[in-house]
Amino acid sequence: MMNGRIYNFSAGPSMLPEPVLLRIQEELLNCGGSGMSVLEMSHRSKVYDDIICGAVENVREVMQVPDNYKILFLHGGATGLFAALPMNLGTKSGIADYIVSGNFSGGAYKEAKKYLKEARLAGSSEADNFNHIPTPEELTLSPDADYLHVCWNNTIFGTTWKYIPDSGDVPLIADMSSSIMSEPVDVSRFGAIYAGVQKNLAPAGVTLLIIREDLITDPMPITPKIWNFKTQVEKNSMLNTPPTFPIYCVKLVTDYLKETGGLEAIAKKNREKAAILYDYLDSQDFYKTSVKKEDRSMMNVTFRTSSEELDKAFVAGQAERGFSNLKGHRLVGGMRASIYNAMPKEGVEALVAYMKDFAAAH
Amino acid sequence: MMNGRIYNFSAGPSMLPEPVLLRIQEELLNCGGSGMSVLEMSHRSKVYDDIICGAVENVREVMQVPDNYKILFLHGGATGLFAALPMNLGTKSGIADYIVSGNFSGGAYKEAKKYLKEARLAGSSEADNFNHIPTPEELTLSPDADYLHVCWNNTIFGTTWKYIPDSGDVPLIADMSSSIMSEPVDVSRFGAIYAGVQKNLAPAGVTLLIIREDLITDPMPITPKIWNFKTQVEKNSMLNTPPTFPIYCVKLVTDYLKETGGLEAIAKKNREKAAILYDYLDSQDFYKTSVKKEDRSMMNVTFRTSSEELDKAFVAGQAERGFSNLKGHRLVGGMRASIYNAMPKEGVEALVAYMKDFAAAH
Repeated sequence: MMNGRIYNFSAGPSMLPEPVLLRIQEELLNCGGSGMSVLEMSHRSKVYDDIICGAVENVREVMQVPDNYKILFLHGGATGLFAALPMNLGTKSGIADYIVSGNFSGGAYKEAKKYLKEARLAGSSEADNFNHIPTPEELTLSPDADYLHVCWNNTIFGTTWKYIPDSGDVPLIADMSSSIMSEPVDVSRFGAIYAGVQKNLAPAGVTLLIIREDLITDPMPITPKIWNFKTQVEKNSMLNTPPTFPIYCVKLVTDYLKETGGLEAIAKKNREKAAILYDYLDSQDFYKTSVKKEDRSMMNVTFRTSSEELDKAFVAGQAERGFSNLKGHRLVGGMRASIYNAMPKEGVEALVAYMKDFAAAH
Repeated sequence: MMNGRIYNFSAGPSMLPEPVLLRIQEELLNCGGSGMSVLEMSHRSKVYDDIICGAVENVREVMQVPDNYKILFLHGGATGLFAALPMNLGTKSGIADYIVSGNFSGGAYKEAKKYLKEARLAGSSEADNFNHIPTPEELTLSPDADYLHVCWNNTIFGTTWKYIPDSGDVPLIADMSSSIMSEPVDVSRFGAIYAGVQKNLAPAGVTLLIIREDLITDPMPITPKIWNFKTQVEKNSMLNTPPTFPIYCVKLVTDYLKETGGLEAIAKKNREKAAILYDYLDSQDFYKTSVKKEDRSMMNVTFRTSSEELDKAFVAGQAERGFSNLKGHRLVGGMRASIYNAMPKEGVEALVAYMKDFAAAH
């Protein structure tokens, strides 16, 4: 790596493409000849309007978002949306289905209970410590639900949906925080897709929401105005001062995605990166991964040795190899390598080399 | 100005100190020898923990925040807090007093009605188009209120509180978004002070909340978890991923404030800057300002010529002089010069020179 930089396997916030960082650095004092930093720009100015509109256009182009979907930038992270979604979408029957496949989907389910007449547990893999995504047979879906909620990629456990659950006419809402723009997705199969940007798109601080127009109606009266989707659509995400800098970064990151071949190209790269790690894991038995093979995440790879002591030693040795953030989440233990879009293939190769050396030495 | 930079009179987001921008730029790819950008840092890492704790310590030191106050960084801007405050503080009598002295205090009042049993209008200067701050005689305060809310500096109208309303035992809550850290404030006189950071402290994207410990209790059950003050205190503002970058900027800006003499020094500079503009305004009659003299804001100076046509010409001529964002808010018209902490005295002098030239030419 250049500039004394390391391979940062953080689950989020996480690595950004170096060309994007260099661009931010270059124009930090004077953005686009405006005579001011992007950090200082009025969100009501022409120069910033070009940035936010450019970000929206890029998201639409890169993800091939159909015309009948709106694209919003909102406050509060995905956890904020856990409240905002039932407030905005749970207004007909007041019932919604939640599939719990990990920590964040569980958090979304719990938060929704505050606002809905009934938040239903439509499926869960908790009994198996979230080592898989619930199968179609494990789901009990409600035809009268206002929506079905899933978390697409489970950052902590290292699993991801490989099939789209068939919810019939019930809109499917997906938290894609840790997989957004890592591969092509058929947006038209979803009622809404949302994502905290801090894994694949930008530094922390803004939430991307892609939502089908017909789902945008008057929300519950208790909805904080910053989360009224209808008003935010009318105001182009600028009902109040938006988090201007992360939105600018989304613009730059999606510019970069477009220049480097879009989602097809990044998906190919991500598949290769994940295969390097999983192929190695499957080839030996020093490290184990508890995740069901067919549900493995391409973004977050969890593994462990035979003992907590060795896990600790593995994590302790990372800095010397130029790595960071390989420690697994406290709910799972062991190790986790988050290999989002911006992690170079060389980083994954270097990690596997370390894993081999460590296994040989122990 | 250096680096092709201009004098940006934006009401927010607004200018940041150039030494801070240079520091951000310098360490953008590798922050503090961590091998990663601050934009890429896990909020759970040691290196980031030092940043957020440093920001909190700096706020405490610079504003001399007493020990029995907590300091939080929250999502959603001041507008988000308009909802979060009644949810957290309006739980005893369910009654709160709101003084409406401008646009944002009106917005806070309106938002609070969604959550309180009763949001009372305790005073207003709307009948005078907000040209002054309500006097003590114009207030009707409720001794049974859970709190009294004011907006300390009215960005749009250019007025500011010069006295602290006497609310007795009722905690006084102040939105100080556009005056925070512009001069010393006796924090102990307030139950809570909050501020969107995008005027004096950082780029947009985080809200600073300083709140007296005894006011932190269980909020209303409908409170979104990201705005549960009690939980956020327990989690050191990291219940979910916080907006890491603006918090880092708060750290750098408050470092800079400390290095340059703290609030006493910046207040002196701000008084000088404002005096240059107001003294000129008082010395002539080409430009008028409708704000009552004793309530003039030190941060936002509003003025106009005798006609909308001339106002337009004035604003149209700003770019040539190296200025931007001098157009007044649409609710007021005319012009507005926002001269926050980071606006150099030279910028204000250059503006007055332009005003004189423009007046002479018309």
